[in-house]
Amino acid sequence: SRSLNLAVIPGDGIGQEVVTEGLKVLSAVLPQDVKLETKEYDFGARRYHATGETLTDADLDALKQHDAILLGAIGDPGVPSGVLERGFLLKLRFAFDHHVNLRPSKLLPGVATPLAGQPEIDFVVVREGTEGPYTGNGGTIRKGTEHEVATEVSVNTAYGVERVVRDAFVRAQARPRKKLALIHKNNVLTFAGHLWTNIFNKVAEEFPEVTTEYMHVDAATIYLVTQPERFDVIVTDNLFGDIITDLAAAVSGGIGVAASGNINPSGDFPSMFEPVHGSAPDIAGQGKADPTATVLSVALLLRHLGYDAEAARIDEAVSADLAERTGKPARSTSEIGDALAVRVAG
Amino acid sequence: SRSLNLAVIPGDGIGQEVVTEGLKVLSAVLPQDVKLETKEYDFGARRYHATGETLTDADLDALKQHDAILLGAIGDPGVPSGVLERGFLLKLRFAFDHHVNLRPSKLLPGVATPLAGQPEIDFVVVREGTEGPYTGNGGTIRKGTEHEVATEVSVNTAYGVERVVRDAFVRAQARPRKKLALIHKNNVLTFAGHLWTNIFNKVAEEFPEVTTEYMHVDAATIYLVTQPERFDVIVTDNLFGDIITDLAAAVSGGIGVAASGNINPSGDFPSMFEPVHGSAPDIAGQGKADPTATVLSVALLLRHLGYDAEAARIDEAVSADLAERTGKPARSTSEIGDALAVRVAG
Ligand SMILES: CC(C)[C@H](C(=O)O)[C@@H](O)C(=O)O
Ligand SMILES: CC(C)[C@H](C(=O)O)[C@@H](O)C(=O)O
Repeated sequence: SRSLNLAVIPGDGIGQEVVTEGLKVLSAVLPQDVKLETKEYDFGARRYHATGETLTDADLDALKQHDAILLGAIGDPGVPSGVLERGFLLKLRFAFDHHVNLRPSKLLPGVATPLAGQPEIDFVVVREGTEGPYTGNGGTIRKGTEHEVATEVSVNTAYGVERVVRDAFVRAQARPRKKLALIHKNNVLTFAGHLWTNIFNKVAEEFPEVTTEYMHVDAATIYLVTQPERFDVIVTDNLFGDIITDLAAAVSGGIGVAASGNINPSGDFPSMFEPVHGSAPDIAGQGKADPTATVLSVALLLRHLGYDAEAARIDEAVSADLAERTGKPARSTSEIGDALAVRVAG
Repeated sequence: SRSLNLAVIPGDGIGQEVVTEGLKVLSAVLPQDVKLETKEYDFGARRYHATGETLTDADLDALKQHDAILLGAIGDPGVPSGVLERGFLLKLRFAFDHHVNLRPSKLLPGVATPLAGQPEIDFVVVREGTEGPYTGNGGTIRKGTEHEVATEVSVNTAYGVERVVRDAFVRAQARPRKKLALIHKNNVLTFAGHLWTNIFNKVAEEFPEVTTEYMHVDAATIYLVTQPERFDVIVTDNLFGDIITDLAAAVSGGIGVAASGNINPSGDFPSMFEPVHGSAPDIAGQGKADPTATVLSVALLLRHLGYDAEAARIDEAVSADLAERTGKPARSTSEIGDALAVRVAG
């Protein structure tokens, strides 16, 4: 019999609530013969306040034993900005070499968008996850004085860029429209821009069926609100990917339904799946959070582990649930989770 | 009698067409006693192709003699990406220390927006113009090999950040709502992020009437499409400003009406005013370009030089013109310019 050994990190704020529903749906959709084992980890603000620790070597060793990781949300207004982000979230992405940050955007029927005219949106962003301005390179001199200088260094390697570009081409090739856009700012960031552009063009030769285009990141924000239907697969740098995936989430139904995977395609380390939204401390503990983004992240997790049919059942259940929401009273976090669990089981 | 000695850089693509209309409206609005002198410079792709030059020391000396600069657009698909951007546009911003890059966003009555529900949009972005990832610091090793490493260095100084933050506070203080948002990514780019945040908080103490908030750049893209009415003045870094001002232009009527100023508030060097749009080679020479963004840039130019009443007349003329467009056949570049010239003169 098969098994799925999952690390669960509820984290802060609404994290616990949404993860509970994610696991509920996961249990409901998994085939009978798959033994689901979960182990919960207490990472996040509570542990940081109690022990000063964010993510130790021992933690990483423990997480490494799992097939995958499901994360709720990390972040708390009581912790200085950057401590949990750099000390936990980014540390984990870097330690487990999560270089493919996968963020699908699909505007489902019945879902509200801030855009007029309900455009057709169905694309996926492949965001590089281990390089760029996210490496933590840089520093500060004369801190706190009028002569302070602070630098941030974006590091881009042929190795790191090629593997994520190749991953994006493979994904584009597998989709009906077979389109791939590179988003960068190669007219200003010429060193990194030329590396990205050259590798993109080189790898493109191996995928003659894929239609490619290049777009500056500033122009891309315009197209995301005026012609979002234009996009199929996007590949981009870590920082540009951070920015445009929040915008993409906003136009395709909001961060309440935006899922993401931090993927290590080699399988050397477990991949991590999480909703794009944060810990939302203002509504935490009130049963108000929408668990849909977490449930969709569970679908990404299942697809990553080869459970394609089960992932598809979750996607369908979410579509059906969202399509029936209009005009109905708001449901609690667990009511939405229950409804989705019933749908995937039926 | 007064004089206005203007450097005019039509540039590439639609640049010449829109600048012609900008000057037409400028002539029409200027008081009789102001002697307008203009000198045209042939910078851009044509000159680069002919001579290999983008902007020489002699060019800078010549430009320095003017009260201000009006630019159409620079950029051509026949020139490698980065050559004119780094060699002309950014070189000029850096040489003339254009550290306040001013980009107002106002959704005028009758103007189409991709957002549903026609929100109230009226804010201005103060983008830093001489630091951040735009400095050209960085480099490439092992170029073209599988071991290539390319870096981009964002340089941020207390001197550079404080002056632009202070400028933004002064602008916020002068507006009815008196709100200022700092946009950065201080949870990831912690070195630069802390410098920006600390200086912002320090300068805020001198402006107790200004309501401040901090927002990550990714979250800002969400608010720009879901709650754009929330913003009054925004201050941000060079790259984040580049990205969010294109998005801001898109939601508030498109780049056809987005104006900008590259300002040196000290007056040591002339400031430069230009539409946010590019050279649009696909429609160049056909009289199809909308000169409105250039005309609004002329208004920014006039306001910068103290001609507040004349600037206001242009803004009113543009509002009136836009309000009457719906349902009418499209006009040519010069027809729009003529109409605006008539309005400001009348
Ligand atoms: C919280 C932060 C470190 C993170 C990022 O910038 O990657 C978040 O914005 C995201 O997109 O997952
Ligand atoms: C053309 C380019 C150098 C420029 C920039 O990135 O600043 C443009 O996008 C702008 O916003 O003025």
